[in-house]
Amino acid sequence: MKKDKILLDHGSGGKISHSLTADLMLPIFDNPILSRLDDGAIFDLEGKRLAFSTDTYVVDPIFFPGGNIGDLAINGTVNDIAMCGATPVYLSAGLIIEEGFSIADLKIILKKMASAAAKADVKVVTGDTKVVPKGAADKIFINTSGIGTINEHVNIASNRACPGDKIILSGSIAEHGITVLTQREGMNFASSLTSDTAPLNNMVGLMLSASNNVHVLRDPTRGGVGTALNEIALSSKVGIRIYEDKIPVKDEAAGICELLGFDPLYIANEGKLLAFVGPDDAEIVLSAMKEDEFGRDSCIIGEVISDSPGKVFMQTRIGGSRIVDMLTGEQLPRIC
Amino acid sequence: MKKDKILLDHGSGGKISHSLTADLMLPIFDNPILSRLDDGAIFDLEGKRLAFSTDTYVVDPIFFPGGNIGDLAINGTVNDIAMCGATPVYLSAGLIIEEGFSIADLKIILKKMASAAAKADVKVVTGDTKVVPKGAADKIFINTSGIGTINEHVNIASNRACPGDKIILSGSIAEHGITVLTQREGMNFASSLTSDTAPLNNMVGLMLSASNNVHVLRDPTRGGVGTALNEIALSSKVGIRIYEDKIPVKDEAAGICELLGFDPLYIANEGKLLAFVGPDDAEIVLSAMKEDEFGRDSCIIGEVISDSPGKVFMQTRIGGSRIVDMLTGEQLPRIC
Repeated sequence: MKKDKILLDHGSGGKISHSLTADLMLPIFDNPILSRLDDGAIFDLEGKRLAFSTDTYVVDPIFFPGGNIGDLAINGTVNDIAMCGATPVYLSAGLIIEEGFSIADLKIILKKMASAAAKADVKVVTGDTKVVPKGAADKIFINTSGIGTINEHVNIASNRACPGDKIILSGSIAEHGITVLTQREGMNFASSLTSDTAPLNNMVGLMLSASNNVHVLRDPTRGGVGTALNEIALSSKVGIRIYEDKIPVKDEAAGICELLGFDPLYIANEGKLLAFVGPDDAEIVLSAMKEDEFGRDSCIIGEVISDSPGKVFMQTRIGGSRIVDMLTGEQLPRIC
Repeated sequence: MKKDKILLDHGSGGKISHSLTADLMLPIFDNPILSRLDDGAIFDLEGKRLAFSTDTYVVDPIFFPGGNIGDLAINGTVNDIAMCGATPVYLSAGLIIEEGFSIADLKIILKKMASAAAKADVKVVTGDTKVVPKGAADKIFINTSGIGTINEHVNIASNRACPGDKIILSGSIAEHGITVLTQREGMNFASSLTSDTAPLNNMVGLMLSASNNVHVLRDPTRGGVGTALNEIALSSKVGIRIYEDKIPVKDEAAGICELLGFDPLYIANEGKLLAFVGPDDAEIVLSAMKEDEFGRDSCIIGEVISDSPGKVFMQTRIGGSRIVDMLTGEQLPRIC
C-alpha cells in the first residue's frame, strides 16, 4: 500500500521503528558502535570510556501535568546515558521553534530545562536555535545530546542478559503516556495522573556501587515495558518471563488503559528503568534502588530463562501464560 | 508590537538571534562553558580536552545543487567542532520526519550523510528518529551533535583575536545561501552555482600543524562573513578592518545578490572558514590552507586593529570605509 512512505508507526519505538533502524539505517551507517543499538553509544576516546546519546522531543502538548517538553528533554537524555551505565556530565540543546511561538512559554520551557539539568547534576554547555516559518513545525521541538563517563568495572549492554538474571522495575508504569494522551485536545479525563519524567542517573549510580552484576539497564520509553523487554530478549538471545501481578500499575492508569483499550505494557514511561541483575545480587540492587527517591516502588517482575530465545512471556493473574510481542503500530504519536 | 513572540529574525544568526541567546538563554543556563558562545563547547573530561557541538538543520528545499540536508548536517557539525580547533570523531543524528515522507528520499539523504561522514573521517554512532503527523513538521529536520578531541597546544576561541592578527578567508563567499535561495519555489534563476557544503576538518588539521598562532577559527554560516566578524570583534574586544577588493565573490553570486538587493557579506556559507592568525605565521597558515582541496582560493582579507573595539570596517573598492554591522532582520529563513 503505502510502503514507500514514512508512517507514524516508523516512530513508534515498536516493531516497525526497529525495522527502519535495523534494515534501513544500520547498513548505511555501518559501524560496530552504532550496531549495538543501545540507548547510547559507548566508545573509548583517548583511553577514556564514554557514552554519547541523542534524542529529539516532539511531545504534544508541550505542557502536561508533571512537566513540560523542557524537563522531558533533559531527563530523557540523562536517562539514556545512565542506561549505558554512565554518569551524564554535559548536554547540548538544539531547538526548532515555530515562528510566532510565545517567548513567555519559551522562558518557562528553558527554565524547566535548567532546573532539570541542575537536579540531574549535568550542564547544558552548547546549543543551537532554529526558527522556521509558521506552519513548518508545530510549536517547538527539542533535541538534546549528551556525554557521560563510564567507570572501568562497568559493563552494561542490552546483549548481556543471562538466564537466571532477575528483572527489576523501578516503579509503576504507563503514567507518562497516559498523562500526555489525556491532555490532548478533545480528550477530557478528570485524572490526577502526572508524567513520571525524572532523572534516573542517581539511582543508577547507587545500583552500580552496590553490585558489579548489573547486566542490562533500559528505560522503557516509547513502546513501553513490553517493547523494551522484547528488544533485550532479541539482543541477548534469551527468553524472558514476567509476572502480571508483580508489575505495578496505578489504578487510575489501569482504568484509563482499560477504557481506551490500551495495554499498559506498551505505554511510554519517562522516569522508570528495567534492570537485569545476576540472581545473587538482585536483592542488594533492589535495596539500592529503593534508596533513591525515584526508585521507592522498585520490585522484581520476572527473570531471564534459557528457553525460547527472543521471546517474552507473561504469566497472567489468572495463571495462564501469554506471549508479549513487540509493539506493532503506533498507539500514541508524539508521546515524547 | 510582536515582542512577545518568536520571529524568524530570532533564527537569523544575526543581531536578534544573538540577543535571544545572550539575554534569554545564557542567564537561564548559567555556566562558564556555555557563556563562551563559540561554535562548540570546550571542556576537560577526565583529563582529556574535548569539543562538543550541536546543530539542527531545517534547510528548505532539502535537495539543492551541491548537496542535500544530509551532507549539510554532517559537514555543519564537523565544521563547528573543527572551529574549536578539535578533531571531530563521533557524531549523533536525530531525525524528525513528517508522516508521508518518501522512504526513497530518506535513503538518498541517509546515504549522503554516510558518504559525508566517511569523507570527513567521522562516525555516526548513535541516533534517534521521531515521526510526527502530517503538517506538524515540514518534510525532515536533522540534528547532528558531535564530539572531537583537542591537542594540548591548541587554544582557539572567539575571544583570542589580537591587534595585528591577519584574517584569512578560505575561499569565495555567499554560494550556499544564494544556491538554496534560488532553488525555492517561485524563484527561477538559471544559475550554475552550487552549495559550498564541505568538511573543513582536514584543512584545520593542516593549519594547526603549521602554526601555534592560529587564534580564532569561525565558519561564517547563518549571518555570513559580516556577522561572524562582528561576533569575533565583540568577543575579543578588538576592531576589524577588511578590504572589499580582497573578498572573493564569484561573478554569478555577486550578480544575483545585486539583483535581489542582498549583501554577499551576510549570505550563509557552509564550506568556508575565517582564521585569525598572528601576523608572523599568516603566510605559513595560508600555504597550509591552500594545500587542502577546500582551501585552494584562501586569501588574506583584512586584519585586527586596536581602535574601535567591537566594530568591523570595510575599505570599499572606491577607497571609502564603511561600518559592517551585524545582520539585522532575517534575509533567508531555513537556509541551513
